[in-house]
Amino acid sequence: MKKTPSVLIILGSDSDLPVMEDCLKTLTKFDINYSVTVCSAHRTPDRAHKIAKSARKDGYECIIAAAGMAAHLPGVVAAFTTLPVIGVPIKGSVLDGMDAMLSMTQMPPGIPVATVAVNGATNSAVLAAQILSVKYKDIAKKMIEYKAELAAKVDAKDAALQKKLSRADI
Amino acid sequence: MKKTPSVLIILGSDSDLPVMEDCLKTLTKFDINYSVTVCSAHRTPDRAHKIAKSARKDGYECIIAAAGMAAHLPGVVAAFTTLPVIGVPIKGSVLDGMDAMLSMTQMPPGIPVATVAVNGATNSAVLAAQILSVKYKDIAKKMIEYKAELAAKVDAKDAALQKKLSRADI
Amino acid sequence: MKKTPSVLIILGSDSDLPVMEDCLKTLTKFDINYSVTVCSAHRTPDRAHKIAKSARKDGYECIIAAAGMAAHLPGVVAAFTTLPVIGVPIKGSVLDGMDAMLSMTQMPPGIPVATVAVNGATNSAVLAAQILSVKYKDIAKKMIEYKAELAAKVDAKDAALQKKLSRADI
Amino acid sequence: MKKTPSVLIILGSDSDLPVMEDCLKTLTKFDINYSVTVCSAHRTPDRAHKIAKSARKDGYECIIAAAGMAAHLPGVVAAFTTLPVIGVPIKGSVLDGMDAMLSMTQMPPGIPVATVAVNGATNSAVLAAQILSVKYKDIAKKMIEYKAELAAKVDAKDAALQKKLSRADI
Amino acid sequence: MKKTPSVLIILGSDSDLPVMEDCLKTLTKFDINYSVTVCSAHRTPDRAHKIAKSARKDGYECIIAAAGMAAHLPGVVAAFTTLPVIGVPIKGSVLDGMDAMLSMTQMPPGIPVATVAVNGATNSAVLAAQILSVKYKDIAKKMIEYKAELAAKVDAKDAALQKKLSRADI
Amino acid sequence: MKKTPSVLIILGSDSDLPVMEDCLKTLTKFDINYSVTVCSAHRTPDRAHKIAKSARKDGYECIIAAAGMAAHLPGVVAAFTTLPVIGVPIKGSVLDGMDAMLSMTQMPPGIPVATVAVNGATNSAVLAAQILSVKYKDIAKKMIEYKAELAAKVDAKDAALQKKLSRADI
Amino acid sequence: MKKTPSVLIILGSDSDLPVMEDCLKTLTKFDINYSVTVCSAHRTPDRAHKIAKSARKDGYECIIAAAGMAAHLPGVVAAFTTLPVIGVPIKGSVLDGMDAMLSMTQMPPGIPVATVAVNGATNSAVLAAQILSVKYKDIAKKMIEYKAELAAKVDAKDAALQKKLSRADI
Amino acid sequence: MKKTPSVLIILGSDSDLPVMEDCLKTLTKFDINYSVTVCSAHRTPDRAHKIAKSARKDGYECIIAAAGMAAHLPGVVAAFTTLPVIGVPIKGSVLDGMDAMLSMTQMPPGIPVATVAVNGATNSAVLAAQILSVKYKDIAKKMIEYKAELAAKVDAKDAALQKKLSRADI
Repeated sequence: MKKTPSVLIILGSDSDLPVMEDCLKTLTKFDINYSVTVCSAHRTPDRAHKIAKSARKDGYECIIAAAGMAAHLPGVVAAFTTLPVIGVPIKGSVLDGMDAMLSMTQMPPGIPVATVAVNGATNSAVLAAQILSVKYKDIAKKMIEYKAELAAKVDAKDAALQKKLSRADI
Repeated sequence: MKKTPSVLIILGSDSDLPVMEDCLKTLTKFDINYSVTVCSAHRTPDRAHKIAKSARKDGYECIIAAAGMAAHLPGVVAAFTTLPVIGVPIKGSVLDGMDAMLSMTQMPPGIPVATVAVNGATNSAVLAAQILSVKYKDIAKKMIEYKAELAAKVDAKDAALQKKLSRADI
Repeated sequence: MKKTPSVLIILGSDSDLPVMEDCLKTLTKFDINYSVTVCSAHRTPDRAHKIAKSARKDGYECIIAAAGMAAHLPGVVAAFTTLPVIGVPIKGSVLDGMDAMLSMTQMPPGIPVATVAVNGATNSAVLAAQILSVKYKDIAKKMIEYKAELAAKVDAKDAALQKKLSRADI
Repeated sequence: MKKTPSVLIILGSDSDLPVMEDCLKTLTKFDINYSVTVCSAHRTPDRAHKIAKSARKDGYECIIAAAGMAAHLPGVVAAFTTLPVIGVPIKGSVLDGMDAMLSMTQMPPGIPVATVAVNGATNSAVLAAQILSVKYKDIAKKMIEYKAELAAKVDAKDAALQKKLSRADI
Repeated sequence: MKKTPSVLIILGSDSDLPVMEDCLKTLTKFDINYSVTVCSAHRTPDRAHKIAKSARKDGYECIIAAAGMAAHLPGVVAAFTTLPVIGVPIKGSVLDGMDAMLSMTQMPPGIPVATVAVNGATNSAVLAAQILSVKYKDIAKKMIEYKAELAAKVDAKDAALQKKLSRADI
Repeated sequence: MKKTPSVLIILGSDSDLPVMEDCLKTLTKFDINYSVTVCSAHRTPDRAHKIAKSARKDGYECIIAAAGMAAHLPGVVAAFTTLPVIGVPIKGSVLDGMDAMLSMTQMPPGIPVATVAVNGATNSAVLAAQILSVKYKDIAKKMIEYKAELAAKVDAKDAALQKKLSRADI
Repeated sequence: MKKTPSVLIILGSDSDLPVMEDCLKTLTKFDINYSVTVCSAHRTPDRAHKIAKSARKDGYECIIAAAGMAAHLPGVVAAFTTLPVIGVPIKGSVLDGMDAMLSMTQMPPGIPVATVAVNGATNSAVLAAQILSVKYKDIAKKMIEYKAELAAKVDAKDAALQKKLSRADI
Repeated sequence: MKKTPSVLIILGSDSDLPVMEDCLKTLTKFDINYSVTVCSAHRTPDRAHKIAKSARKDGYECIIAAAGMAAHLPGVVAAFTTLPVIGVPIKGSVLDGMDAMLSMTQMPPGIPVATVAVNGATNSAVLAAQILSVKYKDIAKKMIEYKAELAAKVDAKDAALQKKLSRADI
């Protein structure tokens, strides 16, 4: 049994890990536990189903699935769990991830995948945190801080820009 | 203060209501309370922000926002809340809802929108139910029943097909 | 055990049947036996896997799977069988079937889906017949006749056109 | 109060500045004053609204907003101002800026964004100058010179090409 | 010489008039004078150039050009005027107006077209009004009223929805 | 007469060979014989037809055709043979292979091309093996091993990931 | 031997005739002779080649080929003739003719197809007339008249519009 | 007066020259004279019209126009000439030339542009040669040789491949 709150991250391929590192970092920022596993909807379908089926009773409260091309992974996982499943379309070598995005968003009625941007690793973690914040007050509080941080960063960049512009002809 | 669990549904236009009725019906199926409001990100921005800002303390635990064209509504709402925001791209008169889908999925890091299919009214409700099921055990239980029902319907359709095929040359 | 040659047709929804009737008719033309079942990759995943897993030992020699939207069905089936799987992307209410086509063609290395045109019911049957013709000489022979028929129909249409043009100012 | 004519340039991210430098240079060419600020529709929404709301009374007469991905910035700004808002879709790491273009052009009736080309920094400035030229005769005059310059450059390139071709086998 | 403020509306075809009627009505709402002419970039190019060339000295202060397919009209007009040119991509029988949108937005540096949504007749007029509001204080004032009206309509629709929902099971 | 089982691979250009090497390797893995030829549907049409026409009686049992741009090759080959034809859309310098994919999938009723992913060299070989497995029991057996290998590789990658994660903060 | 000038029109299907009637009418307007035949690149490939191969010596001076879906017909014809081949992409039941357009424009170096708009029947005839006008002075003269007619029609529509506007509030 | 046969090549920008060099080389191969000029539809519209208007009486018999983005150049030229106009869509920094392709193919009835592939420099020359071959027997003869050369090159590449394959394990 996992220590809650806990998120299960499933990667269709280990080559998706570099893109997804921002997801891991962001979950850590929110003190959310996670496991990461490489598991393919098509090459290791039985394990995919087993993982998905037992995810809730294993103590996970949200699943993030990242995959490229005909990215069936989050949909296949969603078929076997009642947990919310977040899909991250990964940009492949062609089509800029549109194939993966359509394979995730366009799920049939009854089995949704919560799709974020192509390569949207950070947003998959933030969405997971928002989902968990419904139950965990701490995460809701951290989300407020996180948003303040985002704003502060933008403001700092603006301040830097004003300084730069005041000194120079661009 | 809303009676929990409670979902806030925001429609960019009242013309989105017919498409979204399946959302309302599906939430009811899961005994999830909801409010529906028509509110535009661009025409009534102040109210949009006010609604979004107070949603959590008003007792809502999830927001569903439906909009067409350059569908900024869910993103704008997400900017003002720490609740999870589900986006439903509505098919407009051109482009088959691709404009709305890209305006929702492609949110910048930090402010995700959980996007479902074009006109995916049912799935927005099921996703909301899955999100709430993290906290509410009852909804998790109902989700199992709901999935069994979905399966039973498919099986019934298959049975009807077998019967039809056994009687006829198609 | 099925009487060979035999094709298994899996429909993601019974609403796909009208589109797929030309598939059934065309298989009959080639004296190829078939079964049709309605089975969903996401709503009845266990049955989908069971059907796919046992298809070869049940005597089927080719599978045709038709589905719309994020059409995972043929890919999911392909994950559980060593038989060739033909995918028919079905046009849904949006995006003209491009979502389904990309969800089928863009399968990851190792698990192909032989994709035909959007709503390409006839071609799924002809492709199945060509596949079976490798083993069954009779089907190869019928394929020659079928192609002659196709040509004859075009020639007849041309003859009708010439007649029409010779009589009239268009 | 700004010295008129004055344009407010809002960048969704400081990473948009290199693309937008041609905008700044072109405004300078037309002797149009400008301020540049980094401000996010989603991360610093309150500041975005405040800036937009006060832009006209702060003395600005036109707003240029550049953003990538689900580029809500110009639309969000347009919701809070009666000034003309020009949108520059910025090419992101995927989809070649089509997501940003559709998020800008496809605004709902009543709240337009004047959209130029993907990464169309120069054209956003020229459009701003044309807009201001309605009021400021000087800019109209400079626009004639600017167009003459554009033509002269094309003619010079043609002359260079003719010279090159006359000397060589290409 | 036209009575100012005055907008020139050029239609690539008279079949664009039904789509563009909302443009005319909206201009009237802002007490902006207009002329409408049917003129083709490709079939009556000389007249197109003549109209464009003399538009400013004829007293027009903004041009709206609507066209479908390879919609060169606004670009061609922009080549011959220093006035701001607004382009309205008209949906043709294929491609949902994407051909027209790209033919307008993607203008080369120096000759912008301010592009609005496919069939965005209302927005072309509102944008023209915003452009003219830089010079004409009255229009700026009317723009505030217009926006209040837009908001009031949304609020009224919301009120109607609340009433309807309170009376009924949807 | 070729030694069976034997696949004919036709490349629209010799520049397609590097992409297609995984096809050759994969066929070898399944002990399937193959010939490779460079032959263009448009530049050497007569040879294309001759090859296609005689393929079956030359002992081939499946054809793989790879081509880019307006990739007519597999369709043209399919017109002259009763064998199953697999099409591999090759990514060209523009459009990410979508032109080639549509030129292959969208074949008219009666003449299918079994289309795989853009640059889907491996999958074209696996599909060919699945097709031949209908007749050749050995290949069916190897297909089971191949799938086990695919699964083992995914599992090994997962094991490596777990090891890496247990040692480090990513 | 055909009476010159003469154009060969090849239709991929007799269902393309209604769309192509404007082609026939327009050729007649230019006093250009034509033959029309229904011939499929994939169903009657031998006749397609024969027709294409002998077209020049049969007296034709230009070929127009219309087809939908994976529209190989003009490319296949172009492979067998040295005459200019004009391609008309026909809109099918899905994808708005983009499949046909890409199957025609994206021909490999050496074998061009002169592609016009989706369903561009009139333009295929006008282009044929322009091509023939290089040799036939009469057609060049008629082209001038044709263009004058086009302009006159636009001017007449404008006159009608002015009349209508002067009488009415639209 | 130009020495016939003569083609006028118009480049929207001198940056298109490197792409178009294959056009120049191919015309030379067919002993077709040509002039090249840099001329912009939007920046030097008057010269564009003048060139187009006088092209036929200057002795040109075909025009090739290359341009990127909202590539109006060939359409604008076509508006002012009765000569056949070939359009070459040039790939810009975004959208892979689809903007240029649609701006050329989708011309309105009456004013066609004969569009070739994105960056299809060679094909624009071959198409010009085919058009001129209607009048000039010599070019028709050279076209036969050119096609034989194309075929010989493919055959040589195939021979090289066979040699390579016979020596090595790929």
